[in-house]
Amino acid sequence: MSECSVTFLPHDRVVTVPTGESLIRAALQGGVHINASCGGEGVCGKCRIIVEQGNVDGGLSERISPEDVEKGYRLACLAKITEDVVVRVPVESSMDKSVMNLQAAPRRTATIKHMDFESLKEEGLFIPPVEKIFLTLSPPSAQNNMPDVTRLIEYLKLEADEHKLELTLSVIRKLPGAMRDGEFQVTVTVIRPVRSDGKNLIINVQPGDTTGENYAVAIDIGTTTIYGQLIDLATGGCLGEAGDFNGQISYGEDVITRIMYAEKPGGLEKLQEVVVGTINSVLEKIIKKSEVDREDISTITFSGNTTMTQLFLQIDPRNIRRAPYVPTATLYPPFLAETVGIHINNHAIALMYPQVSSFVGGDIVAGVMGSGMYRDEVLTLFLDIGTNAELVVGNEDWLACTACSAGPAFEGGGIEFGMRAAKGAIEDFSLDPVTYEPMIFTIGDVRPKGICGSGLITMAAIMFEMGLINNRGKFNREHETSRVRQTNGIWEYVIVWQDETQIGRDIVLTEPDLDNLIRAKGAIYSGCITLLEEVGLSMDMVERIILAGGFGSYIDLEKAMTIGLLPEIDPDRVTFIGNGSLMGARMSSLTNRIRKDVVAVTQKMTNFELSETPSYMDNYIAAMFLPHTEVEKFPRLKARMDKRAE
Amino acid sequence: MSECSVTFLPHDRVVTVPTGESLIRAALQGGVHINASCGGEGVCGKCRIIVEQGNVDGGLSERISPEDVEKGYRLACLAKITEDVVVRVPVESSMDKSVMNLQAAPRRTATIKHMDFESLKEEGLFIPPVEKIFLTLSPPSAQNNMPDVTRLIEYLKLEADEHKLELTLSVIRKLPGAMRDGEFQVTVTVIRPVRSDGKNLIINVQPGDTTGENYAVAIDIGTTTIYGQLIDLATGGCLGEAGDFNGQISYGEDVITRIMYAEKPGGLEKLQEVVVGTINSVLEKIIKKSEVDREDISTITFSGNTTMTQLFLQIDPRNIRRAPYVPTATLYPPFLAETVGIHINNHAIALMYPQVSSFVGGDIVAGVMGSGMYRDEVLTLFLDIGTNAELVVGNEDWLACTACSAGPAFEGGGIEFGMRAAKGAIEDFSLDPVTYEPMIFTIGDVRPKGICGSGLITMAAIMFEMGLINNRGKFNREHETSRVRQTNGIWEYVIVWQDETQIGRDIVLTEPDLDNLIRAKGAIYSGCITLLEEVGLSMDMVERIILAGGFGSYIDLEKAMTIGLLPEIDPDRVTFIGNGSLMGARMSSLTNRIRKDVVAVTQKMTNFELSETPSYMDNYIAAMFLPHTEVEKFPRLKARMDKRAE
Repeated sequence: MSECSVTFLPHDRVVTVPTGESLIRAALQGGVHINASCGGEGVCGKCRIIVEQGNVDGGLSERISPEDVEKGYRLACLAKITEDVVVRVPVESSMDKSVMNLQAAPRRTATIKHMDFESLKEEGLFIPPVEKIFLTLSPPSAQNNMPDVTRLIEYLKLEADEHKLELTLSVIRKLPGAMRDGEFQVTVTVIRPVRSDGKNLIINVQPGDTTGENYAVAIDIGTTTIYGQLIDLATGGCLGEAGDFNGQISYGEDVITRIMYAEKPGGLEKLQEVVVGTINSVLEKIIKKSEVDREDISTITFSGNTTMTQLFLQIDPRNIRRAPYVPTATLYPPFLAETVGIHINNHAIALMYPQVSSFVGGDIVAGVMGSGMYRDEVLTLFLDIGTNAELVVGNEDWLACTACSAGPAFEGGGIEFGMRAAKGAIEDFSLDPVTYEPMIFTIGDVRPKGICGSGLITMAAIMFEMGLINNRGKFNREHETSRVRQTNGIWEYVIVWQDETQIGRDIVLTEPDLDNLIRAKGAIYSGCITLLEEVGLSMDMVERIILAGGFGSYIDLEKAMTIGLLPEIDPDRVTFIGNGSLMGARMSSLTNRIRKDVVAVTQKMTNFELSETPSYMDNYIAAMFLPHTEVEKFPRLKARMDKRAE
Repeated sequence: MSECSVTFLPHDRVVTVPTGESLIRAALQGGVHINASCGGEGVCGKCRIIVEQGNVDGGLSERISPEDVEKGYRLACLAKITEDVVVRVPVESSMDKSVMNLQAAPRRTATIKHMDFESLKEEGLFIPPVEKIFLTLSPPSAQNNMPDVTRLIEYLKLEADEHKLELTLSVIRKLPGAMRDGEFQVTVTVIRPVRSDGKNLIINVQPGDTTGENYAVAIDIGTTTIYGQLIDLATGGCLGEAGDFNGQISYGEDVITRIMYAEKPGGLEKLQEVVVGTINSVLEKIIKKSEVDREDISTITFSGNTTMTQLFLQIDPRNIRRAPYVPTATLYPPFLAETVGIHINNHAIALMYPQVSSFVGGDIVAGVMGSGMYRDEVLTLFLDIGTNAELVVGNEDWLACTACSAGPAFEGGGIEFGMRAAKGAIEDFSLDPVTYEPMIFTIGDVRPKGICGSGLITMAAIMFEMGLINNRGKFNREHETSRVRQTNGIWEYVIVWQDETQIGRDIVLTEPDLDNLIRAKGAIYSGCITLLEEVGLSMDMVERIILAGGFGSYIDLEKAMTIGLLPEIDPDRVTFIGNGSLMGARMSSLTNRIRKDVVAVTQKMTNFELSETPSYMDNYIAAMFLPHTEVEKFPRLKARMDKRAE
């Protein structure tokens, strides 16, 4: 993708953006505020800028007079960058130099980690878990009429140096036909043992040479969404990817309500059937996209949280939700995928990611494996933030984990205009430091409908840093304006006036909303602190943060640090891994090293139950401020605030 | 069972028989001929004897006048022995002392071997393959909320010193309920590994203490009949036994026609379904008889010939019947019984007896295991005689085997009045040395319908020894009587006149019948000779013979040696094991030692294909005489015949 540079005047700030980016998003990236409240549909007409050098694509509107167009005026939300440009943000309100310093620092992009097959190989981590071996056998004769299986095994020993072989009944069934259809040329699929004392299991035999077609499937069974990838075991590449809502949603939004449903007669069976239905539909899509023969799929790796795992395997989950929160198992034996109802073939072996506890499940273990934190000497904090947040801390020598309930604020729950991260959700936000006029960005660049988690964090961070709210999330009573107001005794800020929304009501952020946000971030931060304390460490010793999960991928790091959701750390030392669960499942499909390591990792991960840790409540209370009772823990923020106070 | 002695005069022969035995069978046992041709229904009235001391029960008939009754006359076939008696056989034909010597020697009973659990234990062979272990676990607490599976495994390690444990998904599913239903007292079922590097597999968990109920099933899948036993793993006892005709009979009498049916579209699936249907009905019967809970059945061991094995496991058998006669496999992996359609439970593990070749199958291997010949230093010849005869020779150090086609003569095929061993079949026979009048015995003591294999052998042996037929099975042309006659140019002997049969026709034995019998016995004997020669031995080096199989159990040893079906050997050195296949399956259920040994045994059994052994034809031609071209190979017979010739 080619890039262009955009220079914003009078700030003299230069940003580099991909060709095709809108001017308003470039401004946000550069920390340049431009008033905007309609989500980018050109409706509010506030985001006027002047193109001084170069040209932009679009940006014209009825709201700009022909004379102004002539002068270079454009609407930033409608203008796309196609070459290097210099644009001026008209200073329509008087602004002195000091105000300029209140602008947010330019965003710094954290590392985004993708699965990389080549580097796996370079690191020596690539140990194929499944191999196809082509053999040319001699046909039976009167002098040599050994059984078909014996012939196969002898050739595998002598020609392919394969030993400690076992095979399944289904292979025995296929063998006489495959040998003769292939005129005694066959391809056998061998699964390598995870343990060094294990056997090489022959799971399939095909006539002729099919060594070029060897595939695996990775499936992340999320509470909300199920994602699948079809992986080429020769190249490590993903041939097809698809996702779908977990059909269990109709039986409960979260794991607790699902468990309650599973406790009803027939409930467990129903939920199992439904999730398998979704998995089969995802599988169907990725097989179709990849254009592979399902006969050539050798393994399928599943990861999910503890409840999703137990429901998928039809294991009564009732004890997960009741003290003392006992999961049924951590490690699961491999099994034939078809035996749980997966429409695949009769030989693909299923692997289930192991769990650590009722609330630290296989999705987190998969993330730890996929991110590689368990084999790195750097002290890492791994965070998967959602309604429940799971935390893992450690390095190659040790690992500790816990889970805490953040409540649904980050997914829009308990927030007056909260919503999930869907089209129309305000996901980003900026504030004019003098006028407190907002600049908003919505998912899909449409008129706003509500606020999603990442938008909420950004709003709270900016309002706090600009002094619009105090460290308890209360609006500065002196700032009462048309946007900051009381309604029925509750203080609130109007983000978007009703005319510019899709819902015909003022979209506001209230003090109770901020209170819920502070509780949520406080729960997570204090969870991190408590976990670290339990292992004798403190937050400033953390050398790296890994953020996993859908929500984690959208967090604005600086803002998350400003509100005290995350500890303050150099953004270069933060890595986003996206769907860590899927990444881990894919890694396990690709290399036996990960399959081997995961057993040890699960066993060495020490689980802490925060409810059993007395210091957790103290840490929680201390974290119920923006960013924290002790602002010294956030030195960069403190420096900015000190500077502003000058 | 109490016994009585019977003295026969004028022979002065004393036999001991169980109370309740008929006088005529006692006479047969003592080698005393009494004319009789109606099968024991009192119809022919020929078997008159005089009770001289003591009393018998019954034996009265309209055919005996009141005066004769007064004198002590009875019909031997209707008289039951209830106390010691002395009876006289009236010499109604003139008979000199020399004739007495022509009577058959008293029968000698060969050893009959039964499975004996106690001797297994004494021999140190008892290594339980399945154990139930009772555990009292501590309930989970906030301080100790490890997963259910982990808790179970920890207790098994610490309290029961169990290690290298693996468990199945179905156990994981049952665990949370079983633990809590049993208030944390549970019984786990563990299957021991066959190989020393294997794992202990946990296949079931039950609430409370069920260690007293631990059962196994052994199933012999015969081409004709399927037998099952339900075995108590604590005592080794058989709690229930049942058999049924293999439902596949409707699709072909023998293995070749079944294979041909299996080659038709859907044929293999149909035959699998049908045999599983029979197995399930046998299983149902033995479970009902035993009054056990099918949940407490842990394993099921199957044995059958190669074709029965492949049809049961739905493995295309077409290559078994085509040169070079390649079976698909010898060793089969253990599998869940329910996966092939067995109605048992969801955890019982099925073991399939391994095969050696297309024609030496798991039934023979099971017989070798059950008889223990593979762990004895004595050079043993193991024979299972049927349409196909399987032969194994060897000892603890080595084993060799082969199979030969005897043709259906022993099962009544190709014999004019041949029939299977069923009610009404003439199964035993004696001949008056002077008058050539017969004494016959039928299965069920009813009027005769035909001749079964054992009857055929006895007839040929006696006729040969009495000079009625020569060593080529041709009737002595000088002996033409009302019983020895030509019909349509074919010489025959009338065994039963039509009036005394169930079928209203004279039951005869023809020269072509004798020819078929000689071919059948010649095939088997020459098979034995050839197999021994191939390993550098000769028949006189054989120290023991083991006879397995339904037909084997009924053979009259001396007669079988007289016709040259078996080599001449001291009957004390012959062991009858009955259904060796079932015996081996039961042994494998009871001790892991057999399961371990069977792999080595199968691998060390050298298989010879007679069709590939040029000397077989020469040996066959030499065996086409009664008893053999070289009568010197049968010294006892030769001595008797020499004496008779004096």
